[in-house]
Amino acid sequence: MVEHSGLDIMCLNKYSPASSSSSSSSSSNAEKKLFSKLKVSLTKKYPQKNAETLSAQYGTNLLLIGVSVMLALAQHGPAVKKEHLLAFITALMLVQLVWMLCYMIRRERERGLVPERDAHAGTSWIRGGLTMLALLSLIMDAFRIGYFVGYHSCISAVLGVYPIVHALHTISQVHFLWFHIKDVIKKYETFERFGVIHAVFTNLLLWCNGVMSEAEHFLNNHRRRLTALGYANLSTGVCVCPHCNCTTSVCSMFSTSLYYLYPFNIEYHIFVSAMLLVMWKNIGRTLDLHSNRKRPSTRSPGLLLGPMLGLLALASSVTVLVVYLMQVEKSPQAAVSMFYCYGVVMLSCMCVASGAGLLVYRLEAWPMDTGSNPSRTLDTELLLGSSLGSWLMSWCSVVAVAAAGPSSPSFRWTCLVYSLLLVLEKCVQNLFIVESLYRRRRDPDDTLATEVFCVTPPYDGIVNRGYETTLEGETPKNRVAFSRKQTDVTLPVGNRLNVTPGRKRQILKNITIFLFMCNISLWILPAFGCRPQYDSGLEQETFGYSVWTTVLNLAIPMNLFYRMHSVASLFEVFRKV
Amino acid sequence: MVEHSGLDIMCLNKYSPASSSSSSSSSSNAEKKLFSKLKVSLTKKYPQKNAETLSAQYGTNLLLIGVSVMLALAQHGPAVKKEHLLAFITALMLVQLVWMLCYMIRRERERGLVPERDAHAGTSWIRGGLTMLALLSLIMDAFRIGYFVGYHSCISAVLGVYPIVHALHTISQVHFLWFHIKDVIKKYETFERFGVIHAVFTNLLLWCNGVMSEAEHFLNNHRRRLTALGYANLSTGVCVCPHCNCTTSVCSMFSTSLYYLYPFNIEYHIFVSAMLLVMWKNIGRTLDLHSNRKRPSTRSPGLLLGPMLGLLALASSVTVLVVYLMQVEKSPQAAVSMFYCYGVVMLSCMCVASGAGLLVYRLEAWPMDTGSNPSRTLDTELLLGSSLGSWLMSWCSVVAVAAAGPSSPSFRWTCLVYSLLLVLEKCVQNLFIVESLYRRRRDPDDTLATEVFCVTPPYDGIVNRGYETTLEGETPKNRVAFSRKQTDVTLPVGNRLNVTPGRKRQILKNITIFLFMCNISLWILPAFGCRPQYDSGLEQETFGYSVWTTVLNLAIPMNLFYRMHSVASLFEVFRKV
Repeated sequence: MVEHSGLDIMCLNKYSPASSSSSSSSSSNAEKKLFSKLKVSLTKKYPQKNAETLSAQYGTNLLLIGVSVMLALAQHGPAVKKEHLLAFITALMLVQLVWMLCYMIRRERERGLVPERDAHAGTSWIRGGLTMLALLSLIMDAFRIGYFVGYHSCISAVLGVYPIVHALHTISQVHFLWFHIKDVIKKYETFERFGVIHAVFTNLLLWCNGVMSEAEHFLNNHRRRLTALGYANLSTGVCVCPHCNCTTSVCSMFSTSLYYLYPFNIEYHIFVSAMLLVMWKNIGRTLDLHSNRKRPSTRSPGLLLGPMLGLLALASSVTVLVVYLMQVEKSPQAAVSMFYCYGVVMLSCMCVASGAGLLVYRLEAWPMDTGSNPSRTLDTELLLGSSLGSWLMSWCSVVAVAAAGPSSPSFRWTCLVYSLLLVLEKCVQNLFIVESLYRRRRDPDDTLATEVFCVTPPYDGIVNRGYETTLEGETPKNRVAFSRKQTDVTLPVGNRLNVTPGRKRQILKNITIFLFMCNISLWILPAFGCRPQYDSGLEQETFGYSVWTTVLNLAIPMNLFYRMHSVASLFEVFRKV
Repeated sequence: MVEHSGLDIMCLNKYSPASSSSSSSSSSNAEKKLFSKLKVSLTKKYPQKNAETLSAQYGTNLLLIGVSVMLALAQHGPAVKKEHLLAFITALMLVQLVWMLCYMIRRERERGLVPERDAHAGTSWIRGGLTMLALLSLIMDAFRIGYFVGYHSCISAVLGVYPIVHALHTISQVHFLWFHIKDVIKKYETFERFGVIHAVFTNLLLWCNGVMSEAEHFLNNHRRRLTALGYANLSTGVCVCPHCNCTTSVCSMFSTSLYYLYPFNIEYHIFVSAMLLVMWKNIGRTLDLHSNRKRPSTRSPGLLLGPMLGLLALASSVTVLVVYLMQVEKSPQAAVSMFYCYGVVMLSCMCVASGAGLLVYRLEAWPMDTGSNPSRTLDTELLLGSSLGSWLMSWCSVVAVAAAGPSSPSFRWTCLVYSLLLVLEKCVQNLFIVESLYRRRRDPDDTLATEVFCVTPPYDGIVNRGYETTLEGETPKNRVAFSRKQTDVTLPVGNRLNVTPGRKRQILKNITIFLFMCNISLWILPAFGCRPQYDSGLEQETFGYSVWTTVLNLAIPMNLFYRMHSVASLFEVFRKV
């Protein structure tokens, strides 16, 4: 009601005798009128394009405040401490908690009204995966609380409050994801927009924080290793250990275990923020009912080669990880060399698999789905965007190999091949995923799909000439009857021919599951500390320590996200094919 | 024809007796069929979503190769030299030249067919502006050639070839912009997509190269100044001077003049790449004819306050620039302090102006234009995206002030206010520009606009209740007649009331022109060397030299682009209001 009043009054004003009679009234009167107009205009519905811009700007600035504090922290100066950052993040989490609570209470009250829901946002398996990650995050919080209890006499109280709030935040956020992530908000749009974007950027900031802590931990380890080997004489960074003894006996256990849980916590936050961003894009959207229906899942027979090869890849990756971590302390060169050889084999297989998938699509002239779907658009953009990091890394390696002298390590040619394959693999895999996501689904019960396709108005300007001629001379009414009859008649033919599409689907499923496993493997390796780019020393020679570390600190988190995100996308593809 | 054949054959196959008769035919036959199918499928039209992804990936990788070479260059190592980078860029420019030539020849041949054109892409005034920038770039090329001639005996031939190719590239690109930038490509889409994206990323790489050279020059100057003052004991970087004497007498003149022309060259390339990106997005697009018409430009009376204040701002900025550059050598603290005071005044005025503009919009209930328009969408995204750089810079300053001890310079509070105002100003200005761009235009000859608005179906669910009641009981036919009559009757009322919309427009025009001049001022200052963030030393204390320099090297080019881009957008707003 309030939202409509502004314009009503403006339109009414014009027809009221008061406003049309005296054009030369006193200026104080005009001012009063202006102010009253302004008042009603401000209570009116705010244009949503503006609300979008304003809320995006709000969220971005939240993130940038956090990032600037992190940059200051990286300097280990005396003024900015970890506590300040954690206090800021805790405050943001509390605000998000309050908003989620308000939202859920309001929804509970309006239980009678079934809200519109976007079927494509946050499928149940992705929510299930996130719940798993959230559980691991909760364990991490428990460890943090344990650590705080051990050292509570000499560390800031913020370090105790933070994990408690984080645990609360995680629990209620998972609840929110399960019951409200699909909602299409159409009420209090401006307010909710701010709430959702606040949640998006709080999670992004938590992601940044996780990435930073993880990178710091890794770099400290790396420096320690180099010093132990006598390669470098760097100090092990500023020690962040507390200045008192632990009151319990398990403090060191807590702090070391933490770092094995970091990768899961990091993925959790970035995935949640992507899902919330889809929710933000959905605010006020009018759903296209035709494309917004859930697809039934299909049985998938004939899955053997893909999963087998995938498991093989996974097993070999875990082996490589263990061998690498043991070898790198003793002979880094051999470890790095082994990694690159493994990488070349792995990436070649993935290139071939993705390429084969694309070929299968070329064989099948199936129309693309061009309907609006913010979730899919975001998936595509994130996939391409997060490839940038490792592409930059690869090209830097290529430049380093090209610039390397004859005295450089022997693995440089393997490194070159590995880098080029990495670029190629991401290109081809992206193409495969994007094409799969944009293909219209072939429904399993819809055996007539091929027929319908030839009968319905031609796709993309394609005219079925051979068919057209048989229809010549018939009236439109006859034509409809004919096409009905035709589909009935061709049913057995369709069934017999359907063998090939079925096999195609089988091939695609196998490819997808193989790529799925490969991407998990390539996530595990850097996530748990196998980062040969730090240990090879090849690129450091050309780019210098600081530039190369900066590139890696940017590229590795992006690459980790890329791998996880393609795992999620490939799962979607698997269900769709 | 070729594009259609694939599907025809696939559909025909199904109905041919050969394929439906033998389901257990020999495998060699099946293979043959598969290959022939594959062959025809590959010659078929390639799905455009894929072509988009593939070409975007191609372009991105081109840029990343260039960036990685630049990163290696920044290290001043012995292996990677400036020549390598220039040779790479020259090759890219040559490829673009060939593509543009092919494109123009083909268009020339099909002269009879009038191509579809997007009226919103590259308005004539923006092309005019770009021509000016291109002319300055050509002068730069001439200087570079002169420099090469002077030192030709001891510097690489690439340094002579590069400016010649660049000049050729500039000339033909400007020609291309004038005659083809509005084209909506519908033929050979996949091929043209690669051509256009190649052009986009070649220009982006040229931009990056310009930014890098400029930053290097500035940093060398800065170091020289610090050393002269005794503040630092850094070497002046690796000297890039040639190892022989100049054969002409004007070499040093050429090399110093170059740096005054850099800012224009940089803006030229980034603008061209934005325009080409719009062209890329337009490929294969079906234009909405209703929204794709050109708007007549309007006379604008009552422009006095805005231009006057704007000129004042511009004059004071030039004064500040000159004073700053003279003072900073002697007493950096005083110079920086003066800059921040000036900035606070300037930004406050801009905040007030943008805020007033937003208020005026709130007074007027005019519908938003939600039609598809890639050019406008890109403008909005670039505006928000390029704000990020200076927001990060501002928040870093805020953190630095918060972390600063009592011994830090006295201007820190002014710096704090300046930084916060900078964030606020960009937020409000972005809102103002975005709202202006998305407003539907009020045609000047359309004095009935307000009436029509109240008579036509209500916008955004707003119902004109007061009006509705008078229509009660009438038949639809009467209703039409009535609304006609109504507009006739209310014409004088409308004319009398129209004084206010006219004045609103006048206010908006003044605000826009003022902001336009202010943004030019804020572009001039950093573009010509007034960068107090390097000289203040406040942030360096908290973030360290390398982190802070990296932040600035990222943020300042983004900020320069932001200012130029908002100048262009404000000009568009000025014409539209």
